Formats: sequence, structure tokens, C-alpha cells
Amino acid sequence: MSIAINIICADRPGMLRDIAGVVASHGGNIVYTQQFVLDRGANEGRSSVYMEIEAGQAEGMVEELNSLDAIVEVTVYPPFEKIYGSRVIIIGGGAQVAQAAVGAVNEADRHNLRGERISVDTIPLVGEQALADAVAAVGRLHRASILVLAGAIMGGRITEEVKKLQEQGIPVIALKMAGSVPQQADLVVTDPTQAGTFAVMHVASTAVFDINRVRGKEF
Amino acid sequence: MSIAINIICADRPGMLRDIAGVVASHGGNIVYTQQFVLDRGANEGRSSVYMEIEAGQAEGMVEELNSLDAIVEVTVYPPFEKIYGSRVIIIGGGAQVAQAAVGAVNEADRHNLRGERISVDTIPLVGEQALADAVAAVGRLHRASILVLAGAIMGGRITEEVKKLQEQGIPVIALKMAGSVPQQADLVVTDPTQAGTFAVMHVASTAVFDINRVRGKEF
Repeated sequence: MSIAINIICADRPGMLRDIAGVVASHGGNIVYTQQFVLDRGANEGRSSVYMEIEAGQAEGMVEELNSLDAIVEVTVYPPFEKIYGSRVIIIGGGAQVAQAAVGAVNEADRHNLRGERISVDTIPLVGEQALADAVAAVGRLHRASILVLAGAIMGGRITEEVKKLQEQGIPVIALKMAGSVPQQADLVVTDPTQAGTFAVMHVASTAVFDINRVRGKEF
Repeated sequence: MSIAINIICADRPGMLRDIAGVVASHGGNIVYTQQFVLDRGANEGRSSVYMEIEAGQAEGMVEELNSLDAIVEVTVYPPFEKIYGSRVIIIGGGAQVAQAAVGAVNEADRHNLRGERISVDTIPLVGEQALADAVAAVGRLHRASILVLAGAIMGGRITEEVKKLQEQGIPVIALKMAGSVPQQADLVVTDPTQAGTFAVMHVASTAVFDINRVRGKEF
């Protein structure tokens, strides 16, 4: 089997261990988990646990989860991957960050019409430390495929985190800007709209563009 | 304590149970988890487990996790909440979806300059089923605060999912459009740029706007 389930349960120590224990006892391999405490709605204060599970026996597992005292409900869903697809991440500040988003969203709309699923996550931010932390965190984001850095000056610790991100297999597109980030980026693009467009083209399987074939270039 | 850790480990059944078991045995309450299988970089094929933990004893816990055979590394990080903050979600198609993103990203940039952390996630999509699934999934997204629906026609199952999302405490802004979604939305806005701007203003604690004070209105 391969199923996605969402569990609403109590927010207390040991909850995730108990749920993951039931899944493991039915031979299920958890390939994706997202769990957080709900701060809104009828289940406010409870925990939401979403899991995508491969292999194992579904029927008995859902029943056994439902029988746990602290579990309010178990629902079966289509996986996030099928709903939201790959993520293009855009980080930066000022007018450029919104224009990079325009390019990426328009290009993603065109590819998604042809059956792809690409979404665009934009985080407007300024300041070396804030930007460096955000760049570092991209490596821990599920479905993150490429990063666009849109600003007028970026360097120092940001450049170090760009390097680490590239080592984790995530390419980085930078606008033509002051600072050392452009030297480290896989691709430098002058127009922010085109930077966003290139990022989606790299992710899209319906496009012929591959960043590895233009690495180090500037447009 | 309140710490965030990232674990790189084997992708196999029982892994999450073992990790959550160690955390629970040290009295830690897991308030956020994101786990997925890496499809890139040096740790490709391994699992990445990110957790934010409250209470309990950090020192012994990290040591015990490191001693597990299947664990490659344990790293301590600042929480996602502090890095990416609240999420404004924009779903829709065509030129409107990119313009809603422009409004939201520019407005978020202004608030983030004053110390907030608001990010904008845009998913360009068309078709009743695809849109309805995406709207339904917003309720299972961590840090999702408000939804903007940007298109020319939306109704049917999309409207049903909008209603369920509102019951979960997530307000919905719709463009003025054909179909039944605008009747169900908390706020109807004609200009997509302003729709994105309103969404961020509602989320921002530095803004005076509150969607509850204009519910059912049209601008």
C-alpha cells in the first residue's frame, strides 16, 4: 500500500512515538510526516499528524490508530506531493522579490496547465543573519527544488549558506547584485522576472531548460 | 528547554518510532515534526527528521539519539516559525494569481522590515477537483494563516472545501469572480493586488486590519 493519513490527537509527550509504533507494527514505512499543534478551529490545542506511508497493511493499522485513547480522528487523504508538487523558493527584499515571484508564478501556471505541480514560496526578508538562516533552512524544507535570491546586495554568511545548500543538491539562482552571492550562484540573471521564470523552467519536466547546462553563466 | 533538531537517518520502518521514543523518554513534547526522504545531495535516500521540542532534558537526549545505529547526524537549529513565520496561501490560475502574489509579497516585505515574518506560498492551479483538493489541504499545512483564491470562476466542490477550511479557523479572500466561491468567502476583492495586500494585512500584527470587521464585504 501507499496511503496518506491525517490524525487529530492530544498534544502530549509520547504521542508521536505511539502513532509511529502502530505504523511500524503493521510494517508501514513512513516516507513523510508533518506534525504540529493546531492554533485554530474546533481542534485548537490538539496535535495534527499527517503521514505518507509505504508498504504494510492499511486496514488494521487505521483501526488500531482509531482505538488509541488520545486519538480524536483518522482521515485518509491524497499525498501533498500530488497536490502541491515541487517548490521553487524565492528569498529577498524590495521590488525585485515580488517581480521574481511574478515570473515564477506565471511560468508555473503555464506548466501546471500541462499537468505539472509546481508551487512558488516567497519569503521577503532583509539582513545578513535573517537571510542566511532562511537560506540554510531551505535544505530542511520538503519538496524544495531550487532557490532564487532576489535583492540588491547579498554576501558574507549568506554566501556560505548558499554553498552548503548547493552541496545538498539544491541549485541557486541569484540576481545580478552587489556582494559575493552572484559568484557562488549556479546562474546569475539580471531581470528578476526572468530569474523566476528560469527557476520554474529548471524544475519543470515539460521544459527543456537544465541549469547544469548553463552553470556559471550570466543573463 | 525548547529546541529544534534535525536528524539524518536511515529510511526504514520503525525509525520515527525509535526517535520519538528517545524524545519521549527524556520528557520532551514534540510540537512540530517534518520528516521526509531526501532525493538529493550526499544523504540521498536517507530520511531527514526535523523536530521542535518543548520541555524535557536536551543534553542526554541528543547524545542518546546520536548513539542510535541508524542515525547519521543530529544538528540543532532555530525553529522554522522564527525563520519563515506565518504563511499566506494563494491558489488560482491565470494573470490574477501572479498579481495577487505581487500584492502579498510587497505587503509582506513592508511588514517583515518591521520585524514580522510572513511568507507567501502560491500554487497556480486550474480545474475544480485540483483546486478543491488544494483548498482542502491548506487545513493540513503548518503555519497557514489565510487563503486567497484568485481566478475567474470557482464553485462546486471548491466552495464546499472553502466552508470546511473556514470551520478550521482559516479565513478565505476571493476575487470578484463567477461561481459560488465569492458568496462563501469572508471577503471579496476586485483587484488581485489588493486581495494579496489584504491577506497580509490580516496576518500582520503591525497592521490594524482585521478581516472579522469587514466580513461579507466587497471591495
